[in-house]
Amino acid sequence: MEKRISGHTGLMALFGSPVGHSGSPAMYNFSFQHDGLDYAYMAFDVTVEQMPKVFEAIRLFKMRGGNFTMPCKNIAAELVDKLSPAAEIIGACNTFVNDDGVITGHITDGIGFVNNLALHGFDVKGKKAVVLGAGGAATAIQVQFALEGAKEVHIFNIKDDFYARAESTKAKLAEKCPECVVTVDDLDDKEKLAEAVKGCDIVVNATIMGMKPHDDVTLIDKSLFRKDLVVADTVYNPEKTKMILEAEAAGCKAVGGVGMLQQQGVVNYELFVGKKMPLDEYNRFQAEQAK
Amino acid sequence: MEKRISGHTGLMALFGSPVGHSGSPAMYNFSFQHDGLDYAYMAFDVTVEQMPKVFEAIRLFKMRGGNFTMPCKNIAAELVDKLSPAAEIIGACNTFVNDDGVITGHITDGIGFVNNLALHGFDVKGKKAVVLGAGGAATAIQVQFALEGAKEVHIFNIKDDFYARAESTKAKLAEKCPECVVTVDDLDDKEKLAEAVKGCDIVVNATIMGMKPHDDVTLIDKSLFRKDLVVADTVYNPEKTKMILEAEAAGCKAVGGVGMLQQQGVVNYELFVGKKMPLDEYNRFQAEQAK
Repeated sequence: MEKRISGHTGLMALFGSPVGHSGSPAMYNFSFQHDGLDYAYMAFDVTVEQMPKVFEAIRLFKMRGGNFTMPCKNIAAELVDKLSPAAEIIGACNTFVNDDGVITGHITDGIGFVNNLALHGFDVKGKKAVVLGAGGAATAIQVQFALEGAKEVHIFNIKDDFYARAESTKAKLAEKCPECVVTVDDLDDKEKLAEAVKGCDIVVNATIMGMKPHDDVTLIDKSLFRKDLVVADTVYNPEKTKMILEAEAAGCKAVGGVGMLQQQGVVNYELFVGKKMPLDEYNRFQAEQAK
Repeated sequence: MEKRISGHTGLMALFGSPVGHSGSPAMYNFSFQHDGLDYAYMAFDVTVEQMPKVFEAIRLFKMRGGNFTMPCKNIAAELVDKLSPAAEIIGACNTFVNDDGVITGHITDGIGFVNNLALHGFDVKGKKAVVLGAGGAATAIQVQFALEGAKEVHIFNIKDDFYARAESTKAKLAEKCPECVVTVDDLDDKEKLAEAVKGCDIVVNATIMGMKPHDDVTLIDKSLFRKDLVVADTVYNPEKTKMILEAEAAGCKAVGGVGMLQQQGVVNYELFVGKKMPLDEYNRFQAEQAK
């Protein structure tokens, strides 16, 4: 450590709230050290209102790249200089790359999530999905599912400020991916939710429910779980949410949020430094530390 | 490293230009790690014009503390919320402490320099000193010398924008320390400089001359060195400047800038975290690394 950070070391960072629990600093710092790259990755708790100042700091400190998490992904898309095609459709970005002062926003949540499902043997092509939530990660997954050829994407969200965003996603996908059936319903309509889960191949929680301090909450009644259902979570703290534990107990294929984060990290790392992230080495390192 | 920086780790930093060569990140990061304190210390190359944005970033990222170096020490004193008594006299600060959003500026260059001379057996009380320069470090040393009871302080500076500052220091000291004789002369007046060096107990270089890339420059002609003269430098990169090497060759007591930086660090660390810095442990660590 005391040898790694010098006066030349470049800062990269995660911005959002909360960020204290994030596994990103550990993962990227291990990788920078492993690859002999002179960066340090930190996390800063910031509000949406502070994001213009965050962008001034990114430019001031010449940060090469970094990430945005809830609730800052949408405002970030308004503050970057350019957007990747996917980020432009979604209107959000979770990753930025700073090329000599030109900041490009990317969205890698959806790609990371789909890549992680593929590693668990699930190919979304032709499948029916229920995705809970309408925030940044939820939207990214919904769009990526449609882009990857899902047959149906059923969005459920409570009637909050994000509900209109789900309807906008539906409208955008009707234009960009007309072969995919997209519906939007109220998450509080338990009957409709139960019906959709019964008819789908995969159910995804992309809300913050299940995350500490909401870790005693699950949005899917466990009576709906069946062996041929894939249950996936975007929450990775705790590593196994109540929903994931109940899905495992019911014999479902349960996919927690850690793998998604890691696969997203692989995509991000390549954007930051143009290299494949040493993920296997990191996982081995973590396993050794846990002993 | 990958274990030390988490999503909770707080940032501290050095601001100025150049900063890439600074030994501060290594020293503070070693100490934080040694003491189990959850901070990381980095360095950012910024201009005077960027300093208002630096202060926004300090507040945004809730930095607990940090440092300012050339050329940002004076503007920093205008941007803090409060000034320590010494920083107020000098109109510059090299250290800040952020107490829940209230930022206090301190100046520790002078104290660190005097403490380091004391460690080398030199007590400035009653002595005659020549101090080259009128920047932040130079002014801090001149003021501290006067406060510590030096009999005479002879300031030499080229006729640049800082010259007026030297005269202002003289005026302030005439008021605050009337028993200390202070003079200000042109550094290009080689005859006057030679005369002052001949009559003094200690000569201090507090300009950037001698620092890379000016490392072939020395402002004191080596013919002026005599065995009972103390020659001290604020430049610590290279560790031994041309002036220090020539002073050693002439048999003077030569004191390089590293010790000053370290003693300043001890003062700063106490301001940041309220603890005595593990300096001996750091020096042992460095010596082992150098083997």
